[in-house]
Amino acid sequence: MPAARFNPLVETLSAPPIPAVQAWKRDYHGHLGPLIDLSQAVPGYPPHPDMLGWLGEAASSPDTAGYGDIEGEPDLRLAYADWVSTIYAAKIAATNIQITSGCNQAFMAAMMAIAGPGDTVLLTNPCYFNHETTLAMSGVKVGYVDCHAQNGFLPTVAAVEAKIADGVRALAVVTPNNPTGATYPDGLLGELFELCRKHGLWLIVDETYRDFLPLDSGPPHRLFAIPGWQDTLIGLYSFSKSFCIPGHRVGAVTAGKDVVSQIAKVMDNLQICAPRPPQAALARAIPALVDWRRDNTLEISARSSALIEVMAGAPGWEVAALGAYFAFVRHPFTDLSAYDAAQKLARDAGIITIPGSFFGQGLERYLRVAFANADVPTIRQLGVRFAATG
Amino acid sequence: MPAARFNPLVETLSAPPIPAVQAWKRDYHGHLGPLIDLSQAVPGYPPHPDMLGWLGEAASSPDTAGYGDIEGEPDLRLAYADWVSTIYAAKIAATNIQITSGCNQAFMAAMMAIAGPGDTVLLTNPCYFNHETTLAMSGVKVGYVDCHAQNGFLPTVAAVEAKIADGVRALAVVTPNNPTGATYPDGLLGELFELCRKHGLWLIVDETYRDFLPLDSGPPHRLFAIPGWQDTLIGLYSFSKSFCIPGHRVGAVTAGKDVVSQIAKVMDNLQICAPRPPQAALARAIPALVDWRRDNTLEISARSSALIEVMAGAPGWEVAALGAYFAFVRHPFTDLSAYDAAQKLARDAGIITIPGSFFGQGLERYLRVAFANADVPTIRQLGVRFAATG
Repeated sequence: MPAARFNPLVETLSAPPIPAVQAWKRDYHGHLGPLIDLSQAVPGYPPHPDMLGWLGEAASSPDTAGYGDIEGEPDLRLAYADWVSTIYAAKIAATNIQITSGCNQAFMAAMMAIAGPGDTVLLTNPCYFNHETTLAMSGVKVGYVDCHAQNGFLPTVAAVEAKIADGVRALAVVTPNNPTGATYPDGLLGELFELCRKHGLWLIVDETYRDFLPLDSGPPHRLFAIPGWQDTLIGLYSFSKSFCIPGHRVGAVTAGKDVVSQIAKVMDNLQICAPRPPQAALARAIPALVDWRRDNTLEISARSSALIEVMAGAPGWEVAALGAYFAFVRHPFTDLSAYDAAQKLARDAGIITIPGSFFGQGLERYLRVAFANADVPTIRQLGVRFAATG
Repeated sequence: MPAARFNPLVETLSAPPIPAVQAWKRDYHGHLGPLIDLSQAVPGYPPHPDMLGWLGEAASSPDTAGYGDIEGEPDLRLAYADWVSTIYAAKIAATNIQITSGCNQAFMAAMMAIAGPGDTVLLTNPCYFNHETTLAMSGVKVGYVDCHAQNGFLPTVAAVEAKIADGVRALAVVTPNNPTGATYPDGLLGELFELCRKHGLWLIVDETYRDFLPLDSGPPHRLFAIPGWQDTLIGLYSFSKSFCIPGHRVGAVTAGKDVVSQIAKVMDNLQICAPRPPQAALARAIPALVDWRRDNTLEISARSSALIEVMAGAPGWEVAALGAYFAFVRHPFTDLSAYDAAQKLARDAGIITIPGSFFGQGLERYLRVAFANADVPTIRQLGVRFAATG
């Protein structure tokens, strides 16, 4: 009898990368002090006490125990629409919002709405690995737009245009970037938008780390204010980082109503609706926790400054790019692959990072550092830790 | 400039069916009393007060705010493995369990692990519509095994075997069935298992409504006790109905460890992990709420008996099949499509059901009735309500 088999599109995927690097924690013996986990982006501070209270209140209510709207709780769609309208100086309606279970699902649902097996979606190289594996497991081909260190790991418009061909349905970018931290200037995003519009492509912009941009920098971009944005632009967001609730799984898509209609059909199959209690809590938290979020952004900026300072004093180490939540750093181990370098750093120095090679080709000299996970005193220890690997 | 376009596999799907029938509620003017919603399967009683307490406790704890294991919370995987080991008189380990966000996601994740674009998965006709649309949007072809009223809406082994051909990867069945309520006997499931094993197919068994089977009927089947079941069988389950928490979104897959490894890769892309607070609450609820679940099963049995009684006295109406949660009934409106009959029933009698045609071809004479939604006194009103449509 023949063996039942797996889907080769899934079977050929590597195991999820985060658990793989987390396993290295066992190799560090604590001789330099507590482990410093700079791998998965996880805010190093707890949710606001009021947020925990609202979460508990919503979860213990029979009102949220039943099924909810596929598109999301009306209160949260409205609160989020108002918030993004303010952030982008644009007019976003509740009907432009689809609530999802985190931003990976937002990408998956949006991607399925616009691209099918055999189609192509353009990503950058380096890219966020879950974007790559989501496309791969769905039978969607990936076209890579190379981003170089000398250009701050930003794509050029010409490099994107060179990859546009029959069957290309979308360009997906992440800003502030995961893994590099590179923040796309409004001008570049505007040019990418116009390029996509010209060629009938969707522009997917994942802004999971948006709320950690410097406070006085104005709107992250002006794309949502462009008339007709609905026919080209799809914005993705996660509540996980800004509200410190990744375990509750809530994200959002901002898109034209027609796009939301298509995504809702996908969502109904993916899981009917996002979990309701955290949606109810977030609808209260968005307007209420403005000051707390601002304080956190200031704290993350201080961590960013501390990282720049400590890296400047670490021989052989270099910050290649940095922004919002992540830094993409060059390691000094010229004879080691990124994987081996990250494993060495875990074992010898008790620092968990993610190898650059997990994010694309030609990135063996780099490590992704989720510096926002650690407080300033911890970041200041990195110099001593690095020295211990010499 | 060309318009950016949608994925035709998604664009050609109908809008989600539940919201479509829910919209009929507006057409009923209340002249016969409160609306009776027998459409989406929603337990007509609240969660246990302890369950609400545990949900609130878990959701308000910083411990569940962070990311969790992709495969699910260890406590819940163990508690669920112990429970299914008891139910099926089999030895299921925690490593055989993948926790998902509800059973639609369990189907999606399991399906993606075993079938890709261009492959075929066999469903029954009638089938659960989300299974059909999940396959369709993924580019997986559907083969339909017709189930006839005269055979209690169960498939025959010969009918399944006749559909097995190159490219067929799996047979998916639902027992107790959605939409018909038909409960697959252990003998039939054993034969389907052997047929699938012989041909190298996966057998996917969705048992969302398992806990509403009559109390004294023994294990639902013996498949999990067959040596080597891991190479053929994938079990799906939802915590939504038994624990009355569909808004919290938790389901489970029971499968071989190799299958769980593949599904975990899919889950990482779909949403990293299921929401953690309800997982923590369920780990406590599984052993603690045994008596409450038994009482609910007895209550649902009483509702089933009440439905049989009221239907026997309703001229022109006939129960074609019934089990656990649903009945599949023949309506008397011979000149109306199932859609028009369901809409008439909503408007004239304030009863919301789902047209048989939503579940497949040749089902215009049928309506799906989620009788378990309504208590016995409400079900007893159906006779008078039906009469009002005459």
